[in-house]
Amino acid sequence: MGMWVMSHVRSLTDLNFIVTLSHSRYALPRLRAWSRQLHSCLHINAMLLLRRCHSLTRFGPVSIQRHPVAPAVASCAARLWSNSSGDDQRSYQRAHSPSWRHGLAGLLAGTGAVLAYGLHKHKAEQVDTIRTPTLETTLPFPIFSQEEVTKHRSLEDGVWVTYQGGVYDITEFVAMHPGGDKIMLAAGGAIEPFWALYAVHNQEHVLEILSEYKVGELSAEDLKKQQAVKSSDPYSSDPERHPVLHINNLKPFNAEPPPEILSDSYITPSAFFFKRNHLPVPPVDPASYQLHVEGLPGGALTLSLEDLKTKFPKHTVTATLQCAGNRRSEMNTVKQVKGLNWGIAAISNATWSGANLRDVLMAAGYGPDVAQWARHVQFEGLDHDVTGSTYGASIPLNKAVSEEGDVLLAYEMNGKELPADHGFPVRVVVPGTVGARNVKWLGKIIVSSEESSSHWQQNDYKGFSPGTDWDTVDFKSAPAIQELPIQSAITTPADGAVVDRSEEEVIVKGYAWSGGGREVVRVDVSLDGGKTWQVAQLRTSDKGQAAEPSPPPGRAWAWKLWEVTAPLPPEAQELEIVCKAVDNSYNMQPDTVPPIWNLRGVLSNAWHRVNVKIREDEDEEE
Amino acid sequence: MGMWVMSHVRSLTDLNFIVTLSHSRYALPRLRAWSRQLHSCLHINAMLLLRRCHSLTRFGPVSIQRHPVAPAVASCAARLWSNSSGDDQRSYQRAHSPSWRHGLAGLLAGTGAVLAYGLHKHKAEQVDTIRTPTLETTLPFPIFSQEEVTKHRSLEDGVWVTYQGGVYDITEFVAMHPGGDKIMLAAGGAIEPFWALYAVHNQEHVLEILSEYKVGELSAEDLKKQQAVKSSDPYSSDPERHPVLHINNLKPFNAEPPPEILSDSYITPSAFFFKRNHLPVPPVDPASYQLHVEGLPGGALTLSLEDLKTKFPKHTVTATLQCAGNRRSEMNTVKQVKGLNWGIAAISNATWSGANLRDVLMAAGYGPDVAQWARHVQFEGLDHDVTGSTYGASIPLNKAVSEEGDVLLAYEMNGKELPADHGFPVRVVVPGTVGARNVKWLGKIIVSSEESSSHWQQNDYKGFSPGTDWDTVDFKSAPAIQELPIQSAITTPADGAVVDRSEEEVIVKGYAWSGGGREVVRVDVSLDGGKTWQVAQLRTSDKGQAAEPSPPPGRAWAWKLWEVTAPLPPEAQELEIVCKAVDNSYNMQPDTVPPIWNLRGVLSNAWHRVNVKIREDEDEEE
Repeated sequence: MGMWVMSHVRSLTDLNFIVTLSHSRYALPRLRAWSRQLHSCLHINAMLLLRRCHSLTRFGPVSIQRHPVAPAVASCAARLWSNSSGDDQRSYQRAHSPSWRHGLAGLLAGTGAVLAYGLHKHKAEQVDTIRTPTLETTLPFPIFSQEEVTKHRSLEDGVWVTYQGGVYDITEFVAMHPGGDKIMLAAGGAIEPFWALYAVHNQEHVLEILSEYKVGELSAEDLKKQQAVKSSDPYSSDPERHPVLHINNLKPFNAEPPPEILSDSYITPSAFFFKRNHLPVPPVDPASYQLHVEGLPGGALTLSLEDLKTKFPKHTVTATLQCAGNRRSEMNTVKQVKGLNWGIAAISNATWSGANLRDVLMAAGYGPDVAQWARHVQFEGLDHDVTGSTYGASIPLNKAVSEEGDVLLAYEMNGKELPADHGFPVRVVVPGTVGARNVKWLGKIIVSSEESSSHWQQNDYKGFSPGTDWDTVDFKSAPAIQELPIQSAITTPADGAVVDRSEEEVIVKGYAWSGGGREVVRVDVSLDGGKTWQVAQLRTSDKGQAAEPSPPPGRAWAWKLWEVTAPLPPEAQELEIVCKAVDNSYNMQPDTVPPIWNLRGVLSNAWHRVNVKIREDEDEEE
Repeated sequence: MGMWVMSHVRSLTDLNFIVTLSHSRYALPRLRAWSRQLHSCLHINAMLLLRRCHSLTRFGPVSIQRHPVAPAVASCAARLWSNSSGDDQRSYQRAHSPSWRHGLAGLLAGTGAVLAYGLHKHKAEQVDTIRTPTLETTLPFPIFSQEEVTKHRSLEDGVWVTYQGGVYDITEFVAMHPGGDKIMLAAGGAIEPFWALYAVHNQEHVLEILSEYKVGELSAEDLKKQQAVKSSDPYSSDPERHPVLHINNLKPFNAEPPPEILSDSYITPSAFFFKRNHLPVPPVDPASYQLHVEGLPGGALTLSLEDLKTKFPKHTVTATLQCAGNRRSEMNTVKQVKGLNWGIAAISNATWSGANLRDVLMAAGYGPDVAQWARHVQFEGLDHDVTGSTYGASIPLNKAVSEEGDVLLAYEMNGKELPADHGFPVRVVVPGTVGARNVKWLGKIIVSSEESSSHWQQNDYKGFSPGTDWDTVDFKSAPAIQELPIQSAITTPADGAVVDRSEEEVIVKGYAWSGGGREVVRVDVSLDGGKTWQVAQLRTSDKGQAAEPSPPPGRAWAWKLWEVTAPLPPEAQELEIVCKAVDNSYNMQPDTVPPIWNLRGVLSNAWHRVNVKIREDEDEEE
């Protein structure tokens, strides 16, 4: 059968057919062995076809040895499978092949589990067919020692993990893992500490997935040893948060305030400022805190918090930060994207104080010579994953060293020391630039000819055409998001709100902001879905307080709040309230979401729309 | 009747009624006198009501003296008329009151005549009623001396002009004049030299308008003297132009190339580069040319052309210039705007060489002290109108002095000396900034705390909400256009083109550019009106030539050309081809024109759309 398999079996559909022919109640172990053999054959077939994938020719001569299934290979193989099989496989590929890629970044962003579940479920259904539907696993599982488990740390040798005393062979799941090959870090050991870090795994369906791969039990002796090593929660030093926040993800913590809070306060109180962590909040002792500045001719410079505060002038900047994913939920209504389902409040405005990055770079030896070769300034956070790799990002050098760039190494937010969630003791504030580059818990600054090599710089925060999907995306083809485009949203009334006719007018409020220091110069508001427009009142301070002085050109870092009081149109039963803002480069927001939809769900800045009902019957008022 | 008139006559409708009651064949002179009296009364009524106009309270105590009807007063009065009268007057105001304002800037922009004609025609119809429809002016006109005519140079004394020996009392027309109170410059004298300058008057209906105001003949003696002073054509030194250009206005010259020429050449040949003059091309002797730099501590600096070329390093920048009115014609299809009816080719790309403005300002004494108080750099052209007032504009100081601003005092275009139409011998090139600030035939540079006070800076090139009309517009409320927003257009195929099915594919080409040095990073093209999108190939050089090196961040001054070759969709009978570009701040173009429509028709950057038919029957091919 081996040769026949080699030449004919190219898909799981074929495999299912064979299995149907030969199934019996006690055939499981043999079927499993066959299945592994078939998997291997399929793998060889896939490898033979890999040459078609241009980017993979560097793998050199085709070998029948097992290679670690790197994500790119897995994706290519999935495509080859679908090419060489029938309709079922094509639909499999359409439905699922993109998903694991979704998931790769998804896990890093704290999501992706839902997609992974779908992917696994489909596969599991096929595996069920292999096992036969009537099979009951009454056979006792074999016992393995930790030593035996530890031998399985590669795709060649199989990938085993333990969970609560069970041993699981997850070799086949690796290519489907939403978190990509990070799963290999757990190979040969316990999976609990990783799940503690990436809390997205704490869902029932994840256990369901795992249970399908059980192959044995860990010896009682080794289980005892394992349990003796307490896995501490890496999120244990995360701070308390205000309960009003709407939590999009708990670990890492991602949350936004209720929208109406934003327009109630020109400066967003720190407790309500949206929070977007990529990793656990690192506990930092301010007394021993060190900031390293590298890549400059003078050699590395190390600064204490005290140095930062005392050796450099203190500057204060009012700047709005916005997550690239703000308003992502509107893109999800068009077509599912990957990422946290942010509403309209992943944006906030604060006053930041600290040393100018420019001053620090000068002190560390920056000069015209450096400008000859350097192009970027990289930042590394002190927040890290289980492998020790830290959050990272970079900004263009000219932004970092410009006197008008106003980039801060901030140690104060709204006049107090930085809260833990916002980067205590020191974060970068890059006014006008996407939140992701405003690295928190700053540990290192590197002046470089290259951008940060971090996942978040290279393969995450970028925009693509609506026609680009996870199969065709080339992250190298798009620039890392830096300056953000013009944005505005309606914070009140909320979508679905009801206004009484007796109120005679409706008060519409919101925020507007643009990246790159471009000042918002106008906000247009429509009550009729965009047919007619009126101009909103803008403000740059809280009511009753003096407006902030007009910023110098190109340095409008803070948002504007806006308001319109409009009479209720006499005959309207409902209003479609729309806002759109204009900055001083006269950039406008696009009208609709679908044409700016992108697979990562970033840069969602179409006109914001809320629907409001007018209640005619005053008797119903309470 | 005088008192009755004072208390009851508030509108021309009432006036028509009186006139109808009392008309007779020989009543004309008395009616005219009454008319004048009524006009005066109406004026008084208007003045009494002027206090309602908040902005005009500075006129102080109401006086029955005639005031010069400044535009603001006339507008307000028009509104008061409409408030105090019936439907006819309201419709008059709706239809026409905005028009004179349209016209004011319209004339300056070389247009507005059509609107003015409508305004006058309506008024003339009413005047016809006054004169009675049956009246024939068989009476000989009185003879006036030039001395008598010259006495009529104000609204108080009447505004008289002469034209080809006729004497015209245009007092009532002043407030309707599309060119605003510039018409007062002609008061008491011959109108021919002005019409020579503002060639928009050379249309038959303008003569029709004038003829209605004839009140006499100039004495034969004075006519002879007048004719002896030959009025030379101020456009006589305008250069020859290439006949391929599509002329939007001849005097001043405004023309654009056929769109397909743009995408045929990355660098637009100077002869095809769009031309946008506001005034006659001034003849400048390069040997005696002087550039004055003022406003700096060192006192005025005067530079010869030789100085500019030899005392400062020569820099070369490839930069795209775009008229604020590019693609205005698309706004006109929504609702008539004021301005030249530009197509999609009021944009071009050239190589410019000259001295850095920064270097020249430094040489003239610019330093940190100046930055304390200065905010703008003003430019004055050598092109001027009959009163000697020159074209002018300004840019923010930080753009002018930034090392990364790349602002040039250019004396070369595409490797040769500047052509006359492009500012010979010296123009400003402000990369990334609207064409209007790239002042040609540069005569003076002034460092100042204020923007240029020119019409074009203060009351012309600005953007407004679609809800703002000429009655409500406040030019002070909007910033002068500087950096332009993201733009793209399809140069080929042309709208209405036919593609043969046998060709199997369609090649779509175009340009894309963004202001402020923001690099175009992607162009999306749709063949189905925006439902599905593909990504275009971008290029930064002519085919077969090496691409220009990637610009430093924030200094992408030149456009990108783009191209898509797409298979003809099998079942489509026509294509709605759409393009939209994205810059590296991820600004996007708005989807549609109506929501960005503005009364001045500037900043027209919605998705560009062309419709193309697919011809199925190959037999019809020729």
